[in-house]
Amino acid sequence: METIKFIDGGVCAPKGFLANGINCGIRKNKSALDLALISSQEECDTAAVYTKNIVCGAPIFVTKENIKDGKSRALICNSGIANTCNSDGVEKAYKTCEITAKALGLKSCDIIVASTGVIGVPLPIEPIQNSIAELSAGLSADGSSLAAKAIMTTDTVIKEVSAEFYLGDKLCKIGAVSKGSGMINPNMATMLCFVTTDVKIDGGALQKALTLAVDKSFNMLSIDGDTSTNDMVSVMANGLAENEIIDVNSEHYKIFVQALTMCCIKLAREMAMDGEGATKLIECKVSGAYDDRAAKLIAKSVINSSLVKTAMFGSDANWGRILCAMGYSGADFDVSKADVYFNSDTGSVKVCEGGSGCEFSESAAKAVLSSKTVEITIVLKDGQGAAVAFGCDLSYDYVKINGDYRT
Amino acid sequence: METIKFIDGGVCAPKGFLANGINCGIRKNKSALDLALISSQEECDTAAVYTKNIVCGAPIFVTKENIKDGKSRALICNSGIANTCNSDGVEKAYKTCEITAKALGLKSCDIIVASTGVIGVPLPIEPIQNSIAELSAGLSADGSSLAAKAIMTTDTVIKEVSAEFYLGDKLCKIGAVSKGSGMINPNMATMLCFVTTDVKIDGGALQKALTLAVDKSFNMLSIDGDTSTNDMVSVMANGLAENEIIDVNSEHYKIFVQALTMCCIKLAREMAMDGEGATKLIECKVSGAYDDRAAKLIAKSVINSSLVKTAMFGSDANWGRILCAMGYSGADFDVSKADVYFNSDTGSVKVCEGGSGCEFSESAAKAVLSSKTVEITIVLKDGQGAAVAFGCDLSYDYVKINGDYRT
Repeated sequence: METIKFIDGGVCAPKGFLANGINCGIRKNKSALDLALISSQEECDTAAVYTKNIVCGAPIFVTKENIKDGKSRALICNSGIANTCNSDGVEKAYKTCEITAKALGLKSCDIIVASTGVIGVPLPIEPIQNSIAELSAGLSADGSSLAAKAIMTTDTVIKEVSAEFYLGDKLCKIGAVSKGSGMINPNMATMLCFVTTDVKIDGGALQKALTLAVDKSFNMLSIDGDTSTNDMVSVMANGLAENEIIDVNSEHYKIFVQALTMCCIKLAREMAMDGEGATKLIECKVSGAYDDRAAKLIAKSVINSSLVKTAMFGSDANWGRILCAMGYSGADFDVSKADVYFNSDTGSVKVCEGGSGCEFSESAAKAVLSSKTVEITIVLKDGQGAAVAFGCDLSYDYVKINGDYRT
Repeated sequence: METIKFIDGGVCAPKGFLANGINCGIRKNKSALDLALISSQEECDTAAVYTKNIVCGAPIFVTKENIKDGKSRALICNSGIANTCNSDGVEKAYKTCEITAKALGLKSCDIIVASTGVIGVPLPIEPIQNSIAELSAGLSADGSSLAAKAIMTTDTVIKEVSAEFYLGDKLCKIGAVSKGSGMINPNMATMLCFVTTDVKIDGGALQKALTLAVDKSFNMLSIDGDTSTNDMVSVMANGLAENEIIDVNSEHYKIFVQALTMCCIKLAREMAMDGEGATKLIECKVSGAYDDRAAKLIAKSVINSSLVKTAMFGSDANWGRILCAMGYSGADFDVSKADVYFNSDTGSVKVCEGGSGCEFSESAAKAVLSSKTVEITIVLKDGQGAAVAFGCDLSYDYVKINGDYRT
């Protein structure tokens, strides 16, 4: 395995990227940033994946149009209002691009646009118009955290990552910011993730790499089973690392995919840990499944079960609910050969062997489940399929946060 | 429409059925009944539908075997322990049938057996063995409520229904008891429902009628998206009403299906209202969908959304989440023609027209959503498809109940 090292800097770690985040007034609380801008000094090869929800945010529609040519230069994102299910949403999203392009001296079609927040409330364009000068003037190589903060909704912590690695003798970097933290389900989430990189890569390879990375990270993440209207992961690659251009057949492609996947998994875990009301990160690791698809279905089904999630909240070793969730996952497996363990930094407890309960110490199990990170390990004997899914427990606070989100 | 009248009596309303429920000691709390028995004085044509979970309770396996011949005479069900995911589960379920048959002077293969409760805990047979004499001696025509009570787990109220109607000049009756109240999702639930009737009906027609009734009732019910391992709905028809035998082509078949469906919907609504931690019943009524399948997918998806459910708990008119849940339902529909209303006994509020938000009074919406029964009405313009799904809100108490269920 190549050396891939996590570093500081977020989206500004790769060469040639600047970022900023401010409060423009969409969110009434002035200390809550609500408008993020990321720009590249050079044109970027660009790829993205989007929500599969057929009720799709206006910004998604506009971004798809704008990056049809595989190119972009900057990204703007507001939080607070999703700009979805409004009759003038597309118009507003185009207008946002126009305002941004003008301030940066770019073309409108070079802008990626995203929004996150309440659905169905009209997006006011004035706050964006009135603050674009301040936002663009403040772009800096230290601005990643501000951008990360400005895309948060109910997130409690900012989420950014960056990593460096060599392709030949060229030092290359990837950076990203992302946000959760509710309405998150496999097939993307109310999640946004904006990736930057200075690698030089063919557009087709970039899209393929992003799809692979997302499949192992954000598509294996579930907070509450709701798939948002506005999910998007984009990657902008400006080529300033001056590596030999990567295509899907080059030896460097694998390293890039590995680094991108590592970054996305790190963010997915942080998003799970910061899921609405979450008190702990739950990972479900499945091995020995008939194939990877079966492993994914099983891991996601367990992570998604409200009954498993509430049991995890209560640190209750109610493993029967895990078998139950496996059973309705849609995957075929041999129950009579299923083993289940709970693992954490305080130890490991086997709770089910061959589909039946085994003797275990309730107090030891309680200790394992009381950790901040709990792994549910499912070992099957059907084949070589494996997968890991990321989620969190379901707490009183999830209900509290979502019982009156709009006020 | 024929006259179908709800009456008292539960499973004992139809001629020739007796019932009882006691505490046999599976549940430690002596005031919590845990063993139910229903018997018929004559052999019954019998049909059933079961959970689609591939991790399937041992009692399901045994009941399927026992009613392969389409006949039964009695039904026994314990609560507290699900008898699922134990290596000796099938053996214990057969033993339960044997004990019951012996006490009633029947054959083992005439017994329907069911269990509900914690998965993965071995079922002790002694409490059943030791109390079967008391249980069978206490069988009476007033015993329906006791049976209904003995199958409860986290249910807070007993659920029983009975109805009468004429087939020709013969008065016929249907009765049923059921239990919820968590791990309930379309495709059945940790739900049990035991139906009795004195109609005379062909076995094939009985199975078909039950499937139709369940599709419009229990399969449209969701509490938390988890599909249980032990779900079962059975119907025992002893023919004592002496009506002309019903087959699927007879004019009386439709009346029977209608009465059975009415009884099942009444129980499904009660189960939704009594969902774990529920403070209100949510019904999602979809019309104008492309077809009934699309309407069902949409209605179930909305009812199942944790974000919709928490908003309902908070009486928050966050209709964007409804459109979002419609969007990931898997059904195709024209968003730009979707209208959404909230209805209750305090009024009606239109919150979305043609896929976009419309002006509405937040206080009026709050009043509508504060009712004990809220209807989310979705009107599409794609076709003639219609469906109704039943569910409940997601409250702090759901988390509390499920955070430490086993203790």
